[in-house]
Amino acid sequence: MFMYALSAMPGSVSTISNRELRLAARPRGLPGPNVWELTDEEVPEPATGEMLVKISHISLDPAMRGWMDDVRSYIRPVALGEVMRAPAVGRVIASRHPGFAEGSWVTGLFGVRQYALSDGQGVRIVDPHLAPLPRYLGALGITGLTAYFGMLDIGRPRPGETVVVSGAAGAVGSIAGQIGRLLGARTVGIAGGGEKCQWLTDTLGFEEAVDYKLGNVRRALRGAAPDGIDVYFDNVGGRLLDDALAVLGVGGRIILCGAISQYNTGERVQGPANYLSLLVNRASMTGLIVFDYEDRYDEATDQLLAWLDAGALIAREHVVRGEIDAFPQLLLDLFAGASTGKLVLELV
Amino acid sequence: MFMYALSAMPGSVSTISNRELRLAARPRGLPGPNVWELTDEEVPEPATGEMLVKISHISLDPAMRGWMDDVRSYIRPVALGEVMRAPAVGRVIASRHPGFAEGSWVTGLFGVRQYALSDGQGVRIVDPHLAPLPRYLGALGITGLTAYFGMLDIGRPRPGETVVVSGAAGAVGSIAGQIGRLLGARTVGIAGGGEKCQWLTDTLGFEEAVDYKLGNVRRALRGAAPDGIDVYFDNVGGRLLDDALAVLGVGGRIILCGAISQYNTGERVQGPANYLSLLVNRASMTGLIVFDYEDRYDEATDQLLAWLDAGALIAREHVVRGEIDAFPQLLLDLFAGASTGKLVLELV
Repeated sequence: MFMYALSAMPGSVSTISNRELRLAARPRGLPGPNVWELTDEEVPEPATGEMLVKISHISLDPAMRGWMDDVRSYIRPVALGEVMRAPAVGRVIASRHPGFAEGSWVTGLFGVRQYALSDGQGVRIVDPHLAPLPRYLGALGITGLTAYFGMLDIGRPRPGETVVVSGAAGAVGSIAGQIGRLLGARTVGIAGGGEKCQWLTDTLGFEEAVDYKLGNVRRALRGAAPDGIDVYFDNVGGRLLDDALAVLGVGGRIILCGAISQYNTGERVQGPANYLSLLVNRASMTGLIVFDYEDRYDEATDQLLAWLDAGALIAREHVVRGEIDAFPQLLLDLFAGASTGKLVLELV
Repeated sequence: MFMYALSAMPGSVSTISNRELRLAARPRGLPGPNVWELTDEEVPEPATGEMLVKISHISLDPAMRGWMDDVRSYIRPVALGEVMRAPAVGRVIASRHPGFAEGSWVTGLFGVRQYALSDGQGVRIVDPHLAPLPRYLGALGITGLTAYFGMLDIGRPRPGETVVVSGAAGAVGSIAGQIGRLLGARTVGIAGGGEKCQWLTDTLGFEEAVDYKLGNVRRALRGAAPDGIDVYFDNVGGRLLDDALAVLGVGGRIILCGAISQYNTGERVQGPANYLSLLVNRASMTGLIVFDYEDRYDEATDQLLAWLDAGALIAREHVVRGEIDAFPQLLLDLFAGASTGKLVLELV
């Protein structure tokens, strides 16, 4: 463990280290404690054009599991020995970047660490007076943006159509379903357990909720979508995707956002045996990567903020206070479905 | 066996029967002889608004296998005891329909029979001087229209993009690949056997052909599409679809036209295990049913005819002369991949 004196730090900071969570090994199945390594490094000093961010909140996302695998993907894998990639919120505590003043709150892919150096690329300034900080990792972050572009650009539900969302009590699903409702669609959520289902219908305004833990999802979906599913926003994959395909309507649109059921099996992904439903129904299945929409983040954030302010959109964050070393267990909790809404680690 | 005297028949027809092929049982796996029944019925007389067509050519299509299953689909299943559904070409030999004069050549879903009664719905007049009659079941029929709308409406290849077609030496695939080339794309065909592959490259102008019988299609596709597949026109499904998904490029479009590899297994369809490639690549997989485009058949036929006349598009029909009872074995030949181009039964 290394400790360094920071001569250039403002305020009361004197001798501190930067604790970071690094990927030490590639996981097979669930990422156990053996895949992580905690290190303490010198807090870096910003060069010209850089800033130093003190991180306050770290996001936990199912997609992180994919980033840990050494495969060609939409983003390069986290390298062995590298700090784990994560969206985070923090405060600029030292800046030599003209676009970011000291004291600003910012969000970006800062990683699972206490302090991050940034050149400002992909960093957005956030306003803690407009919304609580964890929300910038949820409804106003990558999560909400994913739901927004998936629903508006790919799903495009028309009024009266039936939208079904899997992982509906999760961070992306809970926002996606509500956006479907705001666009005039009937919204059905699939979630695990009575409590989550009740939250969907009683608080978020979903028309119906299907508890997959009760079994026979296909029959429940047939009941909830008697004319077929028009839009299926998929965060789960596996059997639920096959069930949705079996109940798909003519011209249905499936948004492939994730496949949390398949990330940690340690086995080959289960392909959707009912995929020919796409053919029979002239339907489509389209992948969504939110990073493609970066030039429209502002438009989307404005709309999401307006819906939130009007009370038309309800965001929920599950904030856990802890240190960097709390991250590995929280990630396992996320995959176990232990949280409702957006799971965020708030650094103490 | 019934024979009737036809008083209203023109010309030399006197005492004839109408031999029809009916579905007697639902097949499991390949449709063996036990699923068929030949019957001889009275040749019907057209009522007002109807016409009688003497069939000359009957189409054989992989999609027919799906029509024989009792499942919800884009078209109702052929009922047990019903004449097998099939596109056909024939001549109007008696007409009480104002739109169809006696002596006209027509095409429609007349079925596997010698004579068909029709009210004209879905029937198009064809011109034997513009193209040989079997071609109206191939490049100028449902087959060519499927290739046309799949490529132009769903695939939309841009010049320089890479188009890969499975079942490329088949009726739909051979036209789809050529349309891709006409739109300026690099075209790669997957087919079974050296002869078919050579036909694709030497005669049809495909840039490359991959012989799936040689194995390791994935590696061959990586070589043929080093920047990834932009458009995959899928007639085959199964392993080849998984191979194509593995080599898909960013923004790739998969046209789901068929899945001939899965029709006769008698087992559950094999879902594409690599489907998350759609997510990683922001790609799409979209089902195509040609019947949805009926109001644009004329536009497409005009374009296909123009390409054929200019020699830019090459159509090949594999015409087998025989009687109605030749149909079952020909259908098995089709599934065995015995034909190149469009397989047609010409009634003697």
